[in-house]
Amino acid sequence: MTDIEIAQKNKMIPITEVAQKIGITEENLEMYGKYKAKLTMEELRALQKKASEPKNRGKLILTTALTPTPAGEGKSTVSIALGDGLNKIGKKAVIALREPSLGPCFGVKGGACGGGYAQIVPMEDINLHFTGDIHAISIANNLIAALIDNHIKQGNQLGIDPRTISWKRCVDLNDRELRNIVVGMGGIADGMPREDHFCITVASELMAIICLSTSISDLKNRIDNITVAKTFDKRPVKFGELKCTGSIAVLLKDAIKPNLVQTLEKNPVFVHGGPFANIAQGTNSVNATICALATGDYVVTEAGFAADLGAEKFMDIKCRAAGISPDVVVIVATVRALKMHGGMAKADLSTPSVGALQAGFENLAVHIENIAKFGVPAVVAVNKFITDTDEEIALLEKLCEAKGAKAVLCEGWGKGGEGATELAKVVAEVADSGKAKFNYLYPANLSFVDKIKILAKEIYRAKDVDIAPAALKKLRDFEEQGYKDLPVCVAKTQNSISHDPKLMGAPKDYIFPVRDVQLYSGAGFVVALAGEIMTMPGLPKLPAALNIDIDDDGNISGLF
Amino acid sequence: MTDIEIAQKNKMIPITEVAQKIGITEENLEMYGKYKAKLTMEELRALQKKASEPKNRGKLILTTALTPTPAGEGKSTVSIALGDGLNKIGKKAVIALREPSLGPCFGVKGGACGGGYAQIVPMEDINLHFTGDIHAISIANNLIAALIDNHIKQGNQLGIDPRTISWKRCVDLNDRELRNIVVGMGGIADGMPREDHFCITVASELMAIICLSTSISDLKNRIDNITVAKTFDKRPVKFGELKCTGSIAVLLKDAIKPNLVQTLEKNPVFVHGGPFANIAQGTNSVNATICALATGDYVVTEAGFAADLGAEKFMDIKCRAAGISPDVVVIVATVRALKMHGGMAKADLSTPSVGALQAGFENLAVHIENIAKFGVPAVVAVNKFITDTDEEIALLEKLCEAKGAKAVLCEGWGKGGEGATELAKVVAEVADSGKAKFNYLYPANLSFVDKIKILAKEIYRAKDVDIAPAALKKLRDFEEQGYKDLPVCVAKTQNSISHDPKLMGAPKDYIFPVRDVQLYSGAGFVVALAGEIMTMPGLPKLPAALNIDIDDDGNISGLF
Repeated sequence: MTDIEIAQKNKMIPITEVAQKIGITEENLEMYGKYKAKLTMEELRALQKKASEPKNRGKLILTTALTPTPAGEGKSTVSIALGDGLNKIGKKAVIALREPSLGPCFGVKGGACGGGYAQIVPMEDINLHFTGDIHAISIANNLIAALIDNHIKQGNQLGIDPRTISWKRCVDLNDRELRNIVVGMGGIADGMPREDHFCITVASELMAIICLSTSISDLKNRIDNITVAKTFDKRPVKFGELKCTGSIAVLLKDAIKPNLVQTLEKNPVFVHGGPFANIAQGTNSVNATICALATGDYVVTEAGFAADLGAEKFMDIKCRAAGISPDVVVIVATVRALKMHGGMAKADLSTPSVGALQAGFENLAVHIENIAKFGVPAVVAVNKFITDTDEEIALLEKLCEAKGAKAVLCEGWGKGGEGATELAKVVAEVADSGKAKFNYLYPANLSFVDKIKILAKEIYRAKDVDIAPAALKKLRDFEEQGYKDLPVCVAKTQNSISHDPKLMGAPKDYIFPVRDVQLYSGAGFVVALAGEIMTMPGLPKLPAALNIDIDDDGNISGLF
Repeated sequence: MTDIEIAQKNKMIPITEVAQKIGITEENLEMYGKYKAKLTMEELRALQKKASEPKNRGKLILTTALTPTPAGEGKSTVSIALGDGLNKIGKKAVIALREPSLGPCFGVKGGACGGGYAQIVPMEDINLHFTGDIHAISIANNLIAALIDNHIKQGNQLGIDPRTISWKRCVDLNDRELRNIVVGMGGIADGMPREDHFCITVASELMAIICLSTSISDLKNRIDNITVAKTFDKRPVKFGELKCTGSIAVLLKDAIKPNLVQTLEKNPVFVHGGPFANIAQGTNSVNATICALATGDYVVTEAGFAADLGAEKFMDIKCRAAGISPDVVVIVATVRALKMHGGMAKADLSTPSVGALQAGFENLAVHIENIAKFGVPAVVAVNKFITDTDEEIALLEKLCEAKGAKAVLCEGWGKGGEGATELAKVVAEVADSGKAKFNYLYPANLSFVDKIKILAKEIYRAKDVDIAPAALKKLRDFEEQGYKDLPVCVAKTQNSISHDPKLMGAPKDYIFPVRDVQLYSGAGFVVALAGEIMTMPGLPKLPAALNIDIDDDGNISGLF
């Protein structure tokens, strides 16, 4: 059966019953049909208040992965199975995940609701418009853009230099035609001609902001602080100067409230926010994680891409903003992906090879070591494939053990929570052990250059960094503008621990380049760009859109 | 009190109770919170089946207006008050209205939920994201655009000439900067450079399609039939040739289901679809009207702008597509607007003047005569202002009487349904009288040129038409392609009965020009453009966005 067939065959329980399991009553839910709900603002506040005392919080389990390969690793599937597995062994576990973008859904990647018997439902709704959060972010983002251009058109009182506008319009689709455009053509009545760029909504600063905002006033403050352009005399312009922040916040009033859905096994899942893990923090909203920590004894959450990107940002950006920290990190790996890191071609991955596995392990080893640098213990979840041999599994377990991380098989895809009970036991044990002595990778008050150096050397394993002179100057400007204590969000390829997608395994002895930097003063971090980062993907030759259909009764096919 | 204060002070009843009043049970609703719901596909079909027998349908009351002036006429307010008034005098009345666009909401016009004590609620939700219909249409529209450009980029098997792409991207905002743009810059990896244009979502063909589609298969058929471009050898390309129609329909699966809300007086209102009344049909969805006719003994619905635009399109496009017809037309007028048509300046409108009123009546007279050409009786609803004198009202009543239309005062803004009971009595009486002998303005099988001539002479009162040669050729092409029987949708200014916004009152003896025509083969009509039609509005110097705010408890202010 395909993922969508399994999901459609599943019988959901009303979301009110799911909420009840974690002590949330019906009057504290805003219903979106029978199976999706947002928490009310009152409930969000009550749970924030509860979680403000550490003793009221559940254990936080962060799922991350080795460096992705075309072989796939199944991180969401393992996260969902682990949540179900914890519930299966009698633990009160809640899952917190990102919401999918429509871009990949109709492009190449498909949906983002797990797979097989480890899925979240209603998967069609979650993969499509869900509760409208991303649509709200798109239109709010584009209203900011329209207001900036309108300000210029209507007299430009602030003296904004149109060539300096850094705020991009967005659409939540893969649409390469909008990557580089010229707007404002047509003459005097139609605006001011300038170069512009659309990004996919999930790569927008506003998505990052939504995922860090804890209240309407926090949200408004962040929107006020967005740097949108410079004046002709080079003064940075904040969006707050346009005095329309209230309107943007009104459009986002529901988007900041967490959404509750369920797994196939009827366990609670908060699905909220979906920022990219390169240009932004790559993990669900702070509000969702806090609500999960306040309602579950164990919380399984996930960070995008591999540990060098998602997990690092989780620790240094999200944990710093939210005052939380993980009790254990689960690193998802597959024998197949490790063999690819060890040099095997994709077509050969079904062939047993302890040699390739051994060689490829160096990638996983780096991630295990990196997690230790945050003072958090790691467990390796081996997402099992039918082609994995006992010998390969045994070797992997041994290699992990030697690095101080227990490796546990996960068969969530085929068996749901039942396939992850062993993993759940080990993870719960480590989470409860008190072994985590969390620390950030770098203190907030270092210079940006020093922060970048620490990231490059400790996490990406470079021998040095090469920051472009213009970027260096911008970093000094940001420091002078009073942003020195912000964390750094490195935008680099997800396909390597380094900046170079071709360097598989464990790159070392290389120079990590930073070609440009951007100030996300609304979200509260500085983006350092290492290499070309695509913030607007394109559709492939055969997009997923070719396979998706719906019949007159509303039955959807081809969505995965 | 402001409109939003009145709306916020009002205590709504659960939408399930509103639905119950018209025989719709809870299991046939898809809830969006407690106060908004969509009908399920099953219920939509059941009501379509019921309404397919004319004897099961309520009386259809179409609200339209005189030519708008800056003085305002209050058409939505009268429609809502009339619905409440009908319920007040014991009739089972249902209202069917368009959903508001976000563009005007943050621009100059404000929301579109009526005013004073004649409003639909929850007005904040309806004015903002509502049930996500317009967002769904935006993203589906833009996915069509992305798929077309991607087809060209990925080998262009169909041989589409990029210079001929007529499908526009859209955003539901006022954003003049996107009116005229160049997309696909950046080089080989980024697409194909070409001129492009965004329109506001409510002006898109897809919005028109949603409002005419009665089922998923009807919707898919219309999407297949959209003409998106031409090949290099000038063959028209249908979107169906790209074989992604299913994906577009999946995005629109909920958007075709009508939304149910309530008036301040707890009466049922279907609010669904919101196409422009110049470039499209300007009235709520066929599905909403059919559901209203199947559940109410009287249905009040509205068409955009004045009777020359909205009402004509209602009759010739919507009624033709849906097999329905109005039993009475209510023409909304104000003494102030009539005095403006009679030459008075806006600043002087509070000064009594039977002279200006008498002179301006010629505008209303044309609309009354025009409605008679469809065989439908008209009632004039005089939306009363405090500055109207008894003498002015008496004169207006006399003038209307002479044209065969009874004029009745409506004080819905200040008094809600209570202020419209007299209007309700008269309208119900006329609707029940059986006087309506409905006919279309023109038969479907005339040539496009003849259809345009009839519209120009009979409705716009021109002495002749002047169709540009290129437009004539396109009309012949459309006829040869097999579209001869489609109705014509004239896109012209709303500020005059003619094509010239400066011609107030009752223009005559002029030539009506058609400068271009467009084939909306998905929606099923041909657009004839008379003058510059803005499909992407701009923001004013002081946009409404400056006044809108929200506090930490979620209370919204400044939205109207």
